[in-house]
Amino acid sequence: MDRDSLHARIDALGALLAAAAQPGDCLEANAFEPEPPARLLDGDFLLTWKQREEALRAVLAAAEILEALDRAGVSARLFDSGLGVALFRDKSTRTRYAFRAACDLLGLATEELDESTSQLAHGETVRETAAMIGFLTEAVGIRDDLYLGEGHAYMKEVARALDEAHRAGVLPRRPAVVNLQCDLDHPTQSLADVAHLATLFGGLDGLRGKRLAMTWAHSPSYGKPLSVPQGVVALATRFGMDVVLAHPPGYELAREPLAFARLFAAGSGGSFRVSDSMEEAFAGADVVYPKSWAPMAVMRERTRLARAGERAALAELEHAALAENARHADWECDGAKMALTRGGAAHYLHCLPADVSGVNCDRGEVSREVFESARLGTYREASHKPFVIAAILLLTRFADPAAELAGLVERARPRRGA
Amino acid sequence: MDRDSLHARIDALGALLAAAAQPGDCLEANAFEPEPPARLLDGDFLLTWKQREEALRAVLAAAEILEALDRAGVSARLFDSGLGVALFRDKSTRTRYAFRAACDLLGLATEELDESTSQLAHGETVRETAAMIGFLTEAVGIRDDLYLGEGHAYMKEVARALDEAHRAGVLPRRPAVVNLQCDLDHPTQSLADVAHLATLFGGLDGLRGKRLAMTWAHSPSYGKPLSVPQGVVALATRFGMDVVLAHPPGYELAREPLAFARLFAAGSGGSFRVSDSMEEAFAGADVVYPKSWAPMAVMRERTRLARAGERAALAELEHAALAENARHADWECDGAKMALTRGGAAHYLHCLPADVSGVNCDRGEVSREVFESARLGTYREASHKPFVIAAILLLTRFADPAAELAGLVERARPRRGA
Amino acid sequence: MDRDSLHARIDALGALLAAAAQPGDCLEANAFEPEPPARLLDGDFLLTWKQREEALRAVLAAAEILEALDRAGVSARLFDSGLGVALFRDKSTRTRYAFRAACDLLGLATEELDESTSQLAHGETVRETAAMIGFLTEAVGIRDDLYLGEGHAYMKEVARALDEAHRAGVLPRRPAVVNLQCDLDHPTQSLADVAHLATLFGGLDGLRGKRLAMTWAHSPSYGKPLSVPQGVVALATRFGMDVVLAHPPGYELAREPLAFARLFAAGSGGSFRVSDSMEEAFAGADVVYPKSWAPMAVMRERTRLARAGERAALAELEHAALAENARHADWECDGAKMALTRGGAAHYLHCLPADVSGVNCDRGEVSREVFESARLGTYREASHKPFVIAAILLLTRFADPAAELAGLVERARPRRGA
Repeated sequence: MDRDSLHARIDALGALLAAAAQPGDCLEANAFEPEPPARLLDGDFLLTWKQREEALRAVLAAAEILEALDRAGVSARLFDSGLGVALFRDKSTRTRYAFRAACDLLGLATEELDESTSQLAHGETVRETAAMIGFLTEAVGIRDDLYLGEGHAYMKEVARALDEAHRAGVLPRRPAVVNLQCDLDHPTQSLADVAHLATLFGGLDGLRGKRLAMTWAHSPSYGKPLSVPQGVVALATRFGMDVVLAHPPGYELAREPLAFARLFAAGSGGSFRVSDSMEEAFAGADVVYPKSWAPMAVMRERTRLARAGERAALAELEHAALAENARHADWECDGAKMALTRGGAAHYLHCLPADVSGVNCDRGEVSREVFESARLGTYREASHKPFVIAAILLLTRFADPAAELAGLVERARPRRGA
Repeated sequence: MDRDSLHARIDALGALLAAAAQPGDCLEANAFEPEPPARLLDGDFLLTWKQREEALRAVLAAAEILEALDRAGVSARLFDSGLGVALFRDKSTRTRYAFRAACDLLGLATEELDESTSQLAHGETVRETAAMIGFLTEAVGIRDDLYLGEGHAYMKEVARALDEAHRAGVLPRRPAVVNLQCDLDHPTQSLADVAHLATLFGGLDGLRGKRLAMTWAHSPSYGKPLSVPQGVVALATRFGMDVVLAHPPGYELAREPLAFARLFAAGSGGSFRVSDSMEEAFAGADVVYPKSWAPMAVMRERTRLARAGERAALAELEHAALAENARHADWECDGAKMALTRGGAAHYLHCLPADVSGVNCDRGEVSREVFESARLGTYREASHKPFVIAAILLLTRFADPAAELAGLVERARPRRGA
Repeated sequence: MDRDSLHARIDALGALLAAAAQPGDCLEANAFEPEPPARLLDGDFLLTWKQREEALRAVLAAAEILEALDRAGVSARLFDSGLGVALFRDKSTRTRYAFRAACDLLGLATEELDESTSQLAHGETVRETAAMIGFLTEAVGIRDDLYLGEGHAYMKEVARALDEAHRAGVLPRRPAVVNLQCDLDHPTQSLADVAHLATLFGGLDGLRGKRLAMTWAHSPSYGKPLSVPQGVVALATRFGMDVVLAHPPGYELAREPLAFARLFAAGSGGSFRVSDSMEEAFAGADVVYPKSWAPMAVMRERTRLARAGERAALAELEHAALAENARHADWECDGAKMALTRGGAAHYLHCLPADVSGVNCDRGEVSREVFESARLGTYREASHKPFVIAAILLLTRFADPAAELAGLVERARPRRGA
């Protein structure tokens, strides 16, 4: 991308940001509490469905510009010092790396809080710790996706603590809380997914009218988070896609993102419906996203039992869940099902790692053949995540992100070399 | 703080540093071995009572300037590359973050040595490892507070090893060892405490004649380090405070810091005495610092038993210590005791995390009401620690720290922005 | 080193790099598959014996220049952002620090992949993870030395995965894989060893005709990697040294590096032979390198049993290996054996940590007296490793490393100071 194209894109980003900053109507979805849209500047980035559409388009536009700067060898370093704090309450390779790489791209050092070597815990001390790690911090990235009903609440608690400490003058700046996957949403994943689709369909406008099948798929491990499918259906519907969510009975998702998916589909000219057949969802699809997740009722009960420390009941619950799970081993994305898609050639998405039949499990989410032919595409899908995170940092931390990007283009400092 | 005020403070810092660098008398406290005062430049920072008063005032002055630069958005990056090595032999959230943030503020990357994934151990290999992690290192921050009689000795051993390797030309520069809490002192904590008091009393001179009650308080965990109270009484007495140390019989502190507290009080026009009543200590106090610590005799015995691997005896010792501890549950900082302080409105200090009754324990160091009203104040107290550590790094690593700070002000490079 | 001397050395480096980039003959050693020499630019650094001699001389020359820049206080920062990923599948203090310090010296942040908090594993996912951690990465440093037949294969697998992802356009740049110790070679160690010898003998040419005894030595732990002796004999022979490898029967090394050692000795005018007597190897030696390693057959069997999960057989194997090991406790480098060397004053090398008799074990690789007199020398030996790694990063990541170094000299940016 040449200098003029970069400036044109930066101008477009500026217009999106101006629109996103207008006082906006509340986004109301069914029975959910109406609240004003989240702001970008000095705000947190927790749930895409609380963000205005222009804000999401701005994130995607900024990510694209940052990616172009990297390919052009232009440094995007905007911080001379400052910290990004990472707090992972679940395993992570991709997102941990992406957060680290995003921070480093902008000039922030990363400090990972390890709950085993610190004294972090739920309850009173969350409030305290949030202040203690905020003094020279620009952003706190959190993964907390293990227990339904807890992850998002935890991030809000951290955010409130940072608010309080900032209001009291303890923190000279209010760090942004960035959701690196909670129980409700996985926004850096879904935005990377949409960024990938935009490259496949000639831009975000190309998503309009395209059919996306977000389907459950079988995996030997029954307990995967619900946040990826929830995040995908609530985001894809904003861009006019025809979204079909499919899963066996019992694998329903949380009500909030689905209610927003319906609302967004109505507003964007897209559509959203739920099916109980993988085949029906695949029929005519342009994009398929077959992915295992846990039954919500089981996850709720697991949270309750874990809190109560009832180990025996937990083991029993897990046993029953695995048995139920095994009944749906036919929910595998194989060649026959792919043949049902538009021209037999739908794009395959996955957040990785996938459970591939005959590779890392006996019967998984996807057959070896389908995955192998789609594999490099899933890597491309993942490649956008560091830039999406960097874009979120840029848009939450700077008053005029477009001016900063324009400054980077003019500065044109090489990323490497003496 | 504007440019002129900054330069005025930097000039004052320069004068303090000049005074601190004069050949000084030995600080002799009772029977303790007289030794020349520790030097700042190319020295270590281990015990405040081995530092000259001007050196401590210089650390506080530099911390204040660095904090002002941060609030003004001016970059304090002084290193283009270089490492701060962190070695935590005990859990840490606050100090680990503060060390990391301080290093990053000055441009150093942090490398944390993890004893479980390396081959660090006491004895012969300390000497070797110290050299091995020193080649491109500016500072080694160490927390080693678990065993009485060991932490400070360990830091001295590391320091001697660095000396030897530097003298032999193996290390081109001699990294500073920074005490991030040992068995004797916790200087970055006590200096942050004093920095906080200076903001409350209109500067360091305002501490003169103020009464500080450093008291034991009850906690369900009996084994907390003694270094915080030891460090506080040995430091507050240098600034003319009237310090009362109170604890139940059996909870005596180490002799060395108390001997220095007496010496310093005599020299500064302050006072130092020991009491066995929390109420008496609180009476008329301007500042209270109620905090649990372990009985020294128990800690000594614990070190011995742990070294000898006598597990059964260790468990018995712990059992007896807990029983003794429980007898002093009334040593709680509650509303009634706070009412005894000057105007019923003493400032409450704590190094955090506190054991708050009814919050994270049944009966702790402080009542919920007292802690809640003091809570944000304790956050402010903690907020100085990253800057105190950065100041120590600045003063130990640069020949003319005032000139470096003046250079930062003139350079006026924004910490963020293209 | 002054500016002119630096430029002279940089010119010499440029000449070496030009020679190293010429199309070269395959290095063929006995029955081993001939393959073209590894390239430096955009290549990996896995085995010294697959590198052309000019390439190795270039690494040593660049390391020396970087060391001189550091001593002169000139910043060697070449990256404004970018990551070095560290993946340690075995414990490490020295090399982990050296990799971190090398990355930081050039301006790269380090991210350590922890297999316990991520989902890394052998098999299919190596390929995937390699791509996932490569997006903004310049180098991946790997230690994988525990299982014979696995470490080098793992690094090649990572390298192939990065190749594939780069070819497909997923990775905008192909990160270098740097061997931080595998089952075959430990190139950053052996190059640091040779850099040290060059300082002792007045440059690399001074190694010609010097006699090096690389000998097995007794240690209570029988399972140390074979890569250090293998790497040392295959490297020292390239510089015209007369190398004697000595070990008890049963402690043979892998065939490949020995075959190359013979080939290199023939080409360089040096020599290589194998002995079963420590005394004979020491006789007349200029340099001794007494170091424990495991019996290859035992290590092979251990790999097989570990893969098969046969724990009982593993324990039995270990028992037998320890018994055999104990039979060779006289393979200790003591004063009597040192007296056999040239003038009784051979230089003692060790990669550290050493097993020192009466210090960290009863009967180890070296007597306390010999080690103590050689100790600071071993620290000097180790001091070259961060610069060797930085040199490898420089030579694999930049098209014209000599021009970059010349740019650093001209830029003359102080490493520290406002």
